[in-house]
Amino acid sequence: MNISEIVPENIKKLKPYVAGKTIAEVRNEYHPDSISKLASNENRLGCSPAVKPAVIDALESIQDYPDPIAEKLRTAIAEQNHVKPEEILLAAGSESIISILCRTFFKNGDNAVTSNVTFVGFFVQTGVRGIELKKVPVTTGYGFDVDAMLNAIDSQTKMVYLANPNNPTGTILAAEEYRKLVDGIPDNVLLIADEAYYEYAKGYPDFLPAMEYRKENVVILRTFSKAYGLAGLRIGYAIAHPDVIREMIKAKLTFEPTAAAQAAALAAYGDFDFLRKSVELVEKGKEDLYGFFDMNDVEYVRSVSNSVMMILDSEREAVDFTQGMLKKGVILRRINAFGLPNCVRITIGRESEMDHFKNSFKKVYGPKKGSLLENEQKK
Amino acid sequence: MNISEIVPENIKKLKPYVAGKTIAEVRNEYHPDSISKLASNENRLGCSPAVKPAVIDALESIQDYPDPIAEKLRTAIAEQNHVKPEEILLAAGSESIISILCRTFFKNGDNAVTSNVTFVGFFVQTGVRGIELKKVPVTTGYGFDVDAMLNAIDSQTKMVYLANPNNPTGTILAAEEYRKLVDGIPDNVLLIADEAYYEYAKGYPDFLPAMEYRKENVVILRTFSKAYGLAGLRIGYAIAHPDVIREMIKAKLTFEPTAAAQAAALAAYGDFDFLRKSVELVEKGKEDLYGFFDMNDVEYVRSVSNSVMMILDSEREAVDFTQGMLKKGVILRRINAFGLPNCVRITIGRESEMDHFKNSFKKVYGPKKGSLLENEQKK
Repeated sequence: MNISEIVPENIKKLKPYVAGKTIAEVRNEYHPDSISKLASNENRLGCSPAVKPAVIDALESIQDYPDPIAEKLRTAIAEQNHVKPEEILLAAGSESIISILCRTFFKNGDNAVTSNVTFVGFFVQTGVRGIELKKVPVTTGYGFDVDAMLNAIDSQTKMVYLANPNNPTGTILAAEEYRKLVDGIPDNVLLIADEAYYEYAKGYPDFLPAMEYRKENVVILRTFSKAYGLAGLRIGYAIAHPDVIREMIKAKLTFEPTAAAQAAALAAYGDFDFLRKSVELVEKGKEDLYGFFDMNDVEYVRSVSNSVMMILDSEREAVDFTQGMLKKGVILRRINAFGLPNCVRITIGRESEMDHFKNSFKKVYGPKKGSLLENEQKK
Repeated sequence: MNISEIVPENIKKLKPYVAGKTIAEVRNEYHPDSISKLASNENRLGCSPAVKPAVIDALESIQDYPDPIAEKLRTAIAEQNHVKPEEILLAAGSESIISILCRTFFKNGDNAVTSNVTFVGFFVQTGVRGIELKKVPVTTGYGFDVDAMLNAIDSQTKMVYLANPNNPTGTILAAEEYRKLVDGIPDNVLLIADEAYYEYAKGYPDFLPAMEYRKENVVILRTFSKAYGLAGLRIGYAIAHPDVIREMIKAKLTFEPTAAAQAAALAAYGDFDFLRKSVELVEKGKEDLYGFFDMNDVEYVRSVSNSVMMILDSEREAVDFTQGMLKKGVILRRINAFGLPNCVRITIGRESEMDHFKNSFKKVYGPKKGSLLENEQKK
């Protein structure tokens, strides 16, 4: 067998995912006093206490295949969003829904449009499908350049992908810009509105949820991986026109998401108290971190999601800072794969974790931007 | 939006999955005294008692993304199979692995070869990818026709799919036929050896596990959905050459399978006692069912998996029988989608479930083949 003869060119070009260090690896390698995992925009409060009994109950019949359309959960989501169940698709997280969209709608020769700084999942899944992706540069303020995105659409464009709030920046598209985008996209081009951080953003007056400007060609993505704290169970949903959902169901895996995930999500979805606490923690944590960054002359981007992006001077500096923090037990995320090699993303965690971040920061990062302490640099 | 303008032809042609009736629906509609779910080849004993504490433990950090390569489980599987961890890929069940194979290796114009009577998952996933599937008719004994399959391979063939034991028939490929197939397939064509029922089959002297005749182009699929009783958690694995696994990892969803599934599978994988009991139940149940069918002049196929296929005279008869049994609370599976409209598949369940099957059978099915009792027929 000659592997390179049987693998298509688009797959060869893809880089395999490189996992960050696990908590156990960080512990074994650097022996820090404590570990704060602020790398993956997970909910540092955990998940709703209603999840555990719901999953234990689901285990009673775990030998059986899951409900293929997650009827109970789909109905609950439809009700909360004032849509029909046929407008909801449940799948194994937003990445899976993006993969389903790629499998359902693309044919060879199609292309897609997005920005050059956004969720890496769309880059990867279009790459797997061998689709040309037009990445429109973000504005100087790390926002989507709507005019340029609209200009990039041509007769072969099948999808426009917009993460709003965006990841990794935490920024949102201003309402008038959003309307311009939705109005400017041709009817037969799907607008994928990824709202993974919806629950964090919806309290912000400037945030325009896609539901409020919905057209037949708009597909909204939401997830239980962020504010609901269920990343380990892989579950998310799409809201779209029933015609769109019907085609997507053909391409989804028959039995995704898992029975445990369906039960957990249903329990979590009804726990408004935990959701409120989670959002409040992040709000408070962000304000505090902005103050800390201002005091330390760190450049950053204000965020409506559950993370804040630091802007460093160079990729080298971002590598050194992330590595230095890792040795102190603070796991952060470099976002080179998302298009910003000189930036680092910090998930807002519990107070103790943010204190750990700040204390370690002072040892790793100099008092002025650009002056990483010499002893933490390993070149 | 005009949905038919944006959906590729191969997706339009696919039929959406039609779920069977759930236990709750059967209960509400027919009010049977009890319900026996013998439709989906699930393990009627449930799963290992080690699963529950393992999943509860995994819930402690369920807000975190799963380990993308399921390192612990991968190592355990590698050890039990005497291969290297780099030869193992974990994903969300065999259907997901089939989808990953399709996403990784097919390009437009490729084709695949299999038989006309086999696991519907391969039909569906090649259909989603828009790949021509050459379905070679099975032999009169419902076996794979190896010569015809080899003849069907051409320069555009990328994969040959072989379920061994086959599903829905429960039959196996004789060792010499298997060797002929493996030897006859060109080096640059992948042989997908789906061994979902491996644990049930391995005690049969005629069963040749693909591991015993492994070449670089052989990809073995196994699952935790059958003998391990974890269908609700969606987890399975591939064993293949590290070059093949490396490419597949690029196309898999980054975080499949779930953290709960990884923990459950690891616990279940070490419980040899539960596995033994599960296999014994099925062995005993099959022998008993064969005797029952012989007594009642029912045609069937002897099976090495956990189900037995009944052969009826016509699709009409299969529909009537399945429907009649459903009203008695016995859920069976028609296998028209698998290529045999006149056949019905019976999962071997617990003794009480098999008694329920037999007692209901006598009321629904006449004493002779072809004479379904008149009062159960709804035309």
